[in-house]
Amino acid sequence: MQEIAIIGIGQTKIRESWDKSIREIAGEAVLAAMLDAGISTADGLFIGNMMSAMTSHQENLGTLIADWIGLQGKEAFKIEAACGSGAAALRMAIFAVSSGEMDIAIASGVEKMSEVPGSEITAALATAADADYEAVHGLSFVALNALIMKRYLHHYKWKHEDFAPFSVNAHINALSNPYARLHNKISVEQYQKARMVSDPINLLDASPTGDGAAAVIVTSKSKLSNLDISRKPIIEIIGSASATDYLAVHDRINPIWLGAAEKSAKKAYAQAGVSPNDIDFFELHDAFSIMAALSLEACGFAERGEAPRIALNEDIALTGRIPIATMGGLKARGHPVGATGIYQIVESVQQLRGNAGETQVENAKIGMSQNIGGSGATIITHILKAD
Amino acid sequence: MQEIAIIGIGQTKIRESWDKSIREIAGEAVLAAMLDAGISTADGLFIGNMMSAMTSHQENLGTLIADWIGLQGKEAFKIEAACGSGAAALRMAIFAVSSGEMDIAIASGVEKMSEVPGSEITAALATAADADYEAVHGLSFVALNALIMKRYLHHYKWKHEDFAPFSVNAHINALSNPYARLHNKISVEQYQKARMVSDPINLLDASPTGDGAAAVIVTSKSKLSNLDISRKPIIEIIGSASATDYLAVHDRINPIWLGAAEKSAKKAYAQAGVSPNDIDFFELHDAFSIMAALSLEACGFAERGEAPRIALNEDIALTGRIPIATMGGLKARGHPVGATGIYQIVESVQQLRGNAGETQVENAKIGMSQNIGGSGATIITHILKAD
Repeated sequence: MQEIAIIGIGQTKIRESWDKSIREIAGEAVLAAMLDAGISTADGLFIGNMMSAMTSHQENLGTLIADWIGLQGKEAFKIEAACGSGAAALRMAIFAVSSGEMDIAIASGVEKMSEVPGSEITAALATAADADYEAVHGLSFVALNALIMKRYLHHYKWKHEDFAPFSVNAHINALSNPYARLHNKISVEQYQKARMVSDPINLLDASPTGDGAAAVIVTSKSKLSNLDISRKPIIEIIGSASATDYLAVHDRINPIWLGAAEKSAKKAYAQAGVSPNDIDFFELHDAFSIMAALSLEACGFAERGEAPRIALNEDIALTGRIPIATMGGLKARGHPVGATGIYQIVESVQQLRGNAGETQVENAKIGMSQNIGGSGATIITHILKAD
Repeated sequence: MQEIAIIGIGQTKIRESWDKSIREIAGEAVLAAMLDAGISTADGLFIGNMMSAMTSHQENLGTLIADWIGLQGKEAFKIEAACGSGAAALRMAIFAVSSGEMDIAIASGVEKMSEVPGSEITAALATAADADYEAVHGLSFVALNALIMKRYLHHYKWKHEDFAPFSVNAHINALSNPYARLHNKISVEQYQKARMVSDPINLLDASPTGDGAAAVIVTSKSKLSNLDISRKPIIEIIGSASATDYLAVHDRINPIWLGAAEKSAKKAYAQAGVSPNDIDFFELHDAFSIMAALSLEACGFAERGEAPRIALNEDIALTGRIPIATMGGLKARGHPVGATGIYQIVESVQQLRGNAGETQVENAKIGMSQNIGGSGATIITHILKAD
C-alpha cells in the first residue's frame, strides 16, 4: 500500500436536520474538510451512503453532492456497504489515490434518516440483512443483533447488566463532543431500567440514528510537497483492509465471533506492522453494546467471552488499556448509518492531532477504527498514525 | 494508468426473471466470467447496481453476492451512479488493481426490475434525477429526456422520424444476440407509429428495462504471467475516465450538449493515445434515441446537430464509419440499469475477441464504450484494445 495521508477533516452535528436536505448536510461536512485542508478542489468524491433512495428519493448521490459543492466535472460515486458505507468510501478513495489516478480524493459519509417514519427506517435498516432468508421472516436489524446478544449471554454466562459499562462509557465521552447527538450521562441503574427494544437489547444498548455527514481528504504522502495545504499535522493511514463474512447470521460458523473483523484487523495490523498492544485507542462499531464486545474480542483486545470483563475493569475508559468510543461512539455520538465510518476516522484524526478536547487520549500516536456493515457481514478496519 | 487486462466475461440473458432472485442473476454472470477466465477466486468484487433497495429490499449487495458465489471473506462493495453504476464498478476495480491492492478484481453489474409494479420503477428511475428540483415537480426520467429531445429537434430543425435509424439499427443488431431482450426487426414506419411515452419520445425511442447481470474480470497486465488463466485473447483497457456535470438538466450550460461525455471521452482518448478516427465501434448509452445522438456528438463522431445525419447515412451500421449498438445496444439488448455498463464492456470484449457472431465488426481492434448515469450527469468512458 502507498503511503496515504489525511490532510483534512469535517463533520456536522448529528441531529434531526429538518431544515437541511441530504446534499446540504453532506456539503457542510465536505466543505469543512476542504477548508481544514486548505484546498479548493479535488479530483474525486466518494460518498458513503446506505439509504438515500429510501429516505430522500435520491440516487446518483455522488454526482449530486459534487455538483452542490462546486466539483462539477470531477469524478463522483456513491459507495454502499450498509452501515459500513462510510469506511468503504474511504477504501475507494485510498484505491484511487494509491493507483495514481487521483492526487486528492474526498471520502464522505452522509445519511438523512429523520424525515421518514420510524417504521420505514426499520425496513430500510433491514436491507442490510439477507432479504430472502432473514428479513423475510420479519427479523428486524435490531432483532438479529438481539439473537446474537442472547446467544452470547447464554454461552459465556454473562448477565445483561455486565454490558452496562459500554454504554455508560460512551455517554460520558460524548458529553464534551459538540458534534454528538446525545449529551446525557447515564447510570448503570438507568441502563438496567431502559425500555426494552428487542430482548435482550434495550434502548441504552442501542445507538441512536440521526442525520449527519463527515468527510476526510486524502492524498499520497509523496504528493504532499506539491500541495499548497495548510500546515496541519499530517495523519498517515498505515493500515486499510476490509473483509466479508456470510451475510446471514445463521450461515456463520460461529454467530458470536466476528470473523470479518478478525480478518480485516489482522490484515491491517500486518500492513501497519503493529499488534493490538500498539493501538492507543479503538473507535469501534458499537451500534449495539454486543457489537462493541464482539469487536474487542475479534481484534485481539480481549479473549473470547472476556470483553464484558475488560469493560467492567474500566480498560475501555480514556485512561484504560484500550480506550473505545472516545468521543461517544455510535452509542452516544450517534449513528447516521452511512456516515458513521467517516465520523470514526474524523474522531481518530482529532485524537492523533491532539485536538480531542476533554476526551483526549494522552500520548495517542496510533489509533484504529472499525466500521461494520450488516450484523458482522462487511467489516473495514483502518489504522492511523500521527506522523 | 497501469496496464489493465480483461481476462474473463460473463452475462445473463436479459428478460423478466420471475424465477431468480437478484443474487442468482448476479451469480450466473460472475461465475460465467470466472469460468471464462479460468479462475476460481478473486480478491474483490465490485457490484454496480442502482435500485436493489427499492426493488429487492436488499442492500449490502456486494457482500450478499460475494457470499452467494463462494467469495466469503473477500472484499465486496456496491457502487451506485444511477444508470452508470456498471461502468462505475469497473472504474473501482481498475483503481483497486492499479493500486496493487488487488491482483484480480471482479466488476459486475446487476439489476432486477420486473418484480415490482411499473409505477414503482418509474419512481425508482426518477431517483437518478434531482429529487428536490426535478422529480419533485413530477418529472419522470423519460420526461426529462423528452424535454432534451424536444429542444434538440427545435434547435437543429430535425424531424422525429430522422431518429428512426438509431432504433432500427439497434433492433437489427440484437437479432443474433442470444442475451438480448428484444429479437424483432422494426421498420421506420413502425417507429413512427409507435405509442407515445412522453412526447416526443415514443416506445421505439426508449430502451426496454429488464432483469440481468454482466461481469468482467480484470487484472494488471504485469500479473498475467503469474496467473494460471486459460489462454483467451487478452483485451487491454487503454482508456478509463469518468466525469460529472450539473445533475439537474436546467442547470447545464447547454442542455443539448453532454459535457461530461466530452470530458470523459477526451481524457480516455488522451490516455489511450487515440482519436475518434481510431475507434472501430462505439457501445454508447442509447437509453433513448436522443442520447445516442448526443453521445456521438460529444465524443467527436459527428458535428453538433449532425448526429441524425450520420445515422441516416448509415455511418452507424456495422459496415459504417462508426458502428454503434453492435449487439443491440440499450434499445434492443435491453437496459437493466445498473448492469448496462458492464454489458457494454462484455460486448466490446466479444467484438475485440472476434466472437461477436453475425454482428462482428470486421477487423475490430479498438472499441469504446460509454455509460451514462442520469440524463447526462455521470458519464464513464472506457477504451479497449485487442492485445
